[in-house]
Amino acid sequence: MRRKQLILIVCCSLFAVSSNAQQQLGQRPRVKSPVVNQDGTVTFNFYDPSAQRVSVNGDFEEIRDQRLDMTKQENGVWTVTTAPLNPELYSYSFSVDGQRFVDPANSYVNRDINTLSNIFIVSREKGDKGYLYGVHDVPHGTLSRVWYDSPTLGQQRRMTVYLPPQYDGKKRFPVMYLLHGWGGDETAWGDLGRTSQIMDNLIADGKAEPMIVVMPNGNPTCNAAPGWWHEGMYVPDGNAFRDRQAKASMEESFMDIVNFVDSHYMTIAKRNGRAVTGLSMGGGHTFGISRLYPGTFDFYGLQSAAIMMAMGGWLNSENPKPNEEYDTQMARLFNSNPKLFWIAIGKDDFLMQQNADLRKYLDSKGYKYEYYENDGGHIWRNWRIYLTMFAQKIFK
Amino acid sequence: MRRKQLILIVCCSLFAVSSNAQQQLGQRPRVKSPVVNQDGTVTFNFYDPSAQRVSVNGDFEEIRDQRLDMTKQENGVWTVTTAPLNPELYSYSFSVDGQRFVDPANSYVNRDINTLSNIFIVSREKGDKGYLYGVHDVPHGTLSRVWYDSPTLGQQRRMTVYLPPQYDGKKRFPVMYLLHGWGGDETAWGDLGRTSQIMDNLIADGKAEPMIVVMPNGNPTCNAAPGWWHEGMYVPDGNAFRDRQAKASMEESFMDIVNFVDSHYMTIAKRNGRAVTGLSMGGGHTFGISRLYPGTFDFYGLQSAAIMMAMGGWLNSENPKPNEEYDTQMARLFNSNPKLFWIAIGKDDFLMQQNADLRKYLDSKGYKYEYYENDGGHIWRNWRIYLTMFAQKIFK
Repeated sequence: MRRKQLILIVCCSLFAVSSNAQQQLGQRPRVKSPVVNQDGTVTFNFYDPSAQRVSVNGDFEEIRDQRLDMTKQENGVWTVTTAPLNPELYSYSFSVDGQRFVDPANSYVNRDINTLSNIFIVSREKGDKGYLYGVHDVPHGTLSRVWYDSPTLGQQRRMTVYLPPQYDGKKRFPVMYLLHGWGGDETAWGDLGRTSQIMDNLIADGKAEPMIVVMPNGNPTCNAAPGWWHEGMYVPDGNAFRDRQAKASMEESFMDIVNFVDSHYMTIAKRNGRAVTGLSMGGGHTFGISRLYPGTFDFYGLQSAAIMMAMGGWLNSENPKPNEEYDTQMARLFNSNPKLFWIAIGKDDFLMQQNADLRKYLDSKGYKYEYYENDGGHIWRNWRIYLTMFAQKIFK
Repeated sequence: MRRKQLILIVCCSLFAVSSNAQQQLGQRPRVKSPVVNQDGTVTFNFYDPSAQRVSVNGDFEEIRDQRLDMTKQENGVWTVTTAPLNPELYSYSFSVDGQRFVDPANSYVNRDINTLSNIFIVSREKGDKGYLYGVHDVPHGTLSRVWYDSPTLGQQRRMTVYLPPQYDGKKRFPVMYLLHGWGGDETAWGDLGRTSQIMDNLIADGKAEPMIVVMPNGNPTCNAAPGWWHEGMYVPDGNAFRDRQAKASMEESFMDIVNFVDSHYMTIAKRNGRAVTGLSMGGGHTFGISRLYPGTFDFYGLQSAAIMMAMGGWLNSENPKPNEEYDTQMARLFNSNPKLFWIAIGKDDFLMQQNADLRKYLDSKGYKYEYYENDGGHIWRNWRIYLTMFAQKIFK
């Protein structure tokens, strides 16, 4: 009886919903796209009988974008199948007669600054990258958008907080501070970086310690991600508020975040319970934080880091400038014996030279660090890898 | 010096990002769309020199969709301007030569089941609907995606929890349980319903009491929203898992949610601290919950509720069936003297008749309820209004 009632509810409600859907979709037949095939290839489908030229553009290879021309079939559906793809989270869009669109059949999208792209995952077996970025039947952490006061910036600001499945309000956990790059915000690591999926899976597998992950907004002239603060729905752009004078830099205001987290969550509020890592601009922030607050964190991770700029040209091998302040800060940092100073970057990254310069400097001083270099450039694919690696290195 | 460094970071990082953006955008000039004009009209722009026919489809009038044909200008940009629009959150999409796409210039989108639509807000003054759905410089609550165990369903399940800005872990707050409709999930009320914006603004204005809002997933055959549980990135569809046998219904498993919330948050864990309201199928759930657990909640809100189906045809005026169980349950409910039993529905709602039948039944028994009827049908525009009204009626 109850089951029958439920079906009745569903059928009647369906009437209302599908009539709207029909209206929205016009006469387009339902195509499925993308289809991840058994052999690891992926098929894209798109219905448009009147289009002249349709292609799919995606990060199917190590280069960021690859264009695959689609072929029109008699039923008006354009289609193309990739070569077998390695396990990975991929993003793509369609080009229809020269215009870029997201795939109307795929409602899974990520926003990168002002651009939406569709996403899909290829996975072959437990533990591969695709598996790691997917959601599985393991204990899940809590993901929260949290507002905090920053006295230094004189603002109410927003951060994203991941609490591990083990968090019960009684036991204390270490904290990884995870910083985004230029044009990003407090949603970037969760959405593009798949942080909660990666952490859930690593923790479930015993590969990472249960930890809190704090993803703040690293733009001192904004309070929060586009659309989530009082500037309304402006066009997202890393330069949008650059002409505003912030009261302080991200690095200068960073302890507001640490203080808030330590006073609102059950944290291990000392150096062996604190790690900080970031990508690109966030790698620069991490470097600045390491110099400003030696002894506060035990683990540092510089991912594709914008270092030279943060150092005012000091490390530039072609034109080195003496900078006593930085020298002193670096000495203080390494004299405090952090457990890990990790540098990760891809071979094709446009910031490779300045990371090489930093390593040269560290070597010349005998400062201890770890270095990881892989293929590819300044892309999220690498940052997900670096997060996965860093998370397994800390708090052990 | 520091400022100069920051600009350097931004410029260098910009190089990497904008080269990608260029690649993705092709040669399309940057158009702004939509543009909310001073006079309350809204202009849409879309660049496509080769398209033959472009229109914008949006809920600009009380009917769900209105089509406005766009005109091609010499520069290849199609454009159209609406009549002045009332304060509201609007959604729209483009139709390009018969194909539906989201606006490539607008990265603000909502997902409704499997369909993405762009959104924008029109607001004239403080307190109007557009203002209420926007984010302002007021204290903000925390929005969390929380996993809980449902012993009744034998599942780990996901809910969305709004904690008011006043929540400090010490003071206790009342809880509104807010239920979605068919095809929806635990993200629906936050995204399409603008719950955190509405609650932040009503609380800041002293119009609603600070309260916790719990938005569970109402589909017992799913654990969470599409993409957020172990079924992966399937095509969202309210029927997707209908052939699975759930261990219990939403109503039967509902106290798992209440028990979790009372044991994990500082709640007022008694009837005067509990309200439950839902839309469509969630209105049916609310009705079922009211009958199953009399005395547990003091406030009930049925929004465009799927009532008849939940009652097995009992109330159908053309073919009334006696049902002693329901009669007994309703008597017990109203004998428990709930403070509010509220019914809200739009004049054009396809569920109007069964709500009229329910009122007739309540009248015949002398049971006390409040009724609100407005224009429009079974649409989110109305559910945002009902949430706004209900939130101001409870816990006072």
